[in-house]
Amino acid sequence: MHYVGLDIGGTATKAALTDETARILETRKILTITDDLTGLVSSLAELVHEFQKTAVIDAIGLGVPGLRSSKTHIIETSPNIPCLQNVNLEQLLADQVHIRTVGENDANAAVYAEFVRGAAMGLEHIACLTLGTGLGSGFVLNGSLFTGASGFGGEFGHTVIQAGSSVENSGRLCGCGNRGCLETYVSASGIVMTAEAMMDLVPDSLLHGIELPLTSEKIYNAATQGDATAEAVFRETGRYLGIACANLIDLLNLEMIVIGGGVMAAGEMLMQSVRAAARRYAFPASFRDCQIVQSQLWPDGGVIGAAMIARDR
Amino acid sequence: MHYVGLDIGGTATKAALTDETARILETRKILTITDDLTGLVSSLAELVHEFQKTAVIDAIGLGVPGLRSSKTHIIETSPNIPCLQNVNLEQLLADQVHIRTVGENDANAAVYAEFVRGAAMGLEHIACLTLGTGLGSGFVLNGSLFTGASGFGGEFGHTVIQAGSSVENSGRLCGCGNRGCLETYVSASGIVMTAEAMMDLVPDSLLHGIELPLTSEKIYNAATQGDATAEAVFRETGRYLGIACANLIDLLNLEMIVIGGGVMAAGEMLMQSVRAAARRYAFPASFRDCQIVQSQLWPDGGVIGAAMIARDR
Repeated sequence: MHYVGLDIGGTATKAALTDETARILETRKILTITDDLTGLVSSLAELVHEFQKTAVIDAIGLGVPGLRSSKTHIIETSPNIPCLQNVNLEQLLADQVHIRTVGENDANAAVYAEFVRGAAMGLEHIACLTLGTGLGSGFVLNGSLFTGASGFGGEFGHTVIQAGSSVENSGRLCGCGNRGCLETYVSASGIVMTAEAMMDLVPDSLLHGIELPLTSEKIYNAATQGDATAEAVFRETGRYLGIACANLIDLLNLEMIVIGGGVMAAGEMLMQSVRAAARRYAFPASFRDCQIVQSQLWPDGGVIGAAMIARDR
Repeated sequence: MHYVGLDIGGTATKAALTDETARILETRKILTITDDLTGLVSSLAELVHEFQKTAVIDAIGLGVPGLRSSKTHIIETSPNIPCLQNVNLEQLLADQVHIRTVGENDANAAVYAEFVRGAAMGLEHIACLTLGTGLGSGFVLNGSLFTGASGFGGEFGHTVIQAGSSVENSGRLCGCGNRGCLETYVSASGIVMTAEAMMDLVPDSLLHGIELPLTSEKIYNAATQGDATAEAVFRETGRYLGIACANLIDLLNLEMIVIGGGVMAAGEMLMQSVRAAARRYAFPASFRDCQIVQSQLWPDGGVIGAAMIARDR
């Protein structure tokens, strides 16, 4: 049996041909067409056709960024791909390629990959957080992908960790229009905001010498070169992420939180602070149940998970 | 069939005899013995014996405040009942009364009551928040009581909504030792803290004339008498609680959040602000799925839920 997993991102779409054990046999990558639905569907069909030269495909899994209804299979909205507004993309693709196609939120696909093939194999209560430009998150609870009443669940990145007050709302402004969302503290752009705040406090930080625009990569490089402010930025980011992990641990009594995404290039520099803050903030009994680890599948979790959801659903 | 539901609180223990449809046939109430385990167990057995004069009891449900392991059935810790430290209370009671006894966290019992008999009957994704001195919370997900890997899940009151920063941690100090826990903003004591902060801003508020100690009831009474600061306190409390509801809605895509507890005497004065903030902060698609309502079962949800868990487990 062979499956195609597609992971549609705001910039690129990754695709993989897998066997039924989630082994990747072949990968492809194209730029995502974001403003023309017909063009997007055709480009996805073309990817599938390319894989069909190698194998008979039994089903396609489609990871999409955005809110997909598990009731209607319609993508209600996808902030970075404007043409995906109230669209049943899986149906449109299936109609072109005549292969069963199953859709899922991209972060849900990523946690499913960790569950069937990654660090969380054999566990029943798992979160997977993906730290990139934003924060993606998916959950396996009681041994099943958890998506809530309509499939919209798992949007941890827009939960508020800095509520401020109505007199003075100090939470950072998020792309969603609210203030204080977790995403604004732990994503790549959150790291830049933390750095900017710290640079105001430390006039002689080496970060002031970095060529603009400031990016999380440049801050990471400064940290590895020993700049104390840059190191503090990652400690502070780890503190926020650790508090967020503690929130999940107290609420869901998880067995594992798997963290992936481009930001995790910072690896243990970040993870030490994450674990320290989670230990401090979570209930000890619940913290003991939960490992916090880096993803070993990233960046392939999305395509693997999509393929395996196509296998299992 | 007849069941006894026990709801052990830090001050009082409530007990009810129910039939298999969750109808309450008889209630009793005693002071909780908090510092003497043998005395506590005897007092619970005595309650059961009293009910046995009326009916043959098929099973007993025991709602306990604290972290109960679903694996070992041991209560690891119960902050307000010091004698419940590493104790299998359900076993101790069963040994005395020779009736099958099932334990559960008290807030989990309350959501179970809403699920089988209360506002959330027929729904599959539910939270129940109980606002008293602290904040209790329980969850039904995918049509089952959700308690996580070891039964410790559902502790929403100690999730952080004001993370502050390591430079300046502005979150309110919680009884658990951390700062910024939700409980410190929306519980009865949270309301008092909000009032104290607002009184500093409004020197001529009528709240300054209230006899100390300030309580949430006194602030509520001032609000019903038209004191603008007291009204603002409840609006602000509603804002915090609404943000917390939005966090749950985005994360869990719930169908209903049921709110009970003594604080809800403030009723619609609070609920309007809760719904407004939840609408503003949650994803519109997820917010549409979720009703936010007051509990109709409170204060009996605990005993009803405990009895029905005894029936169903």
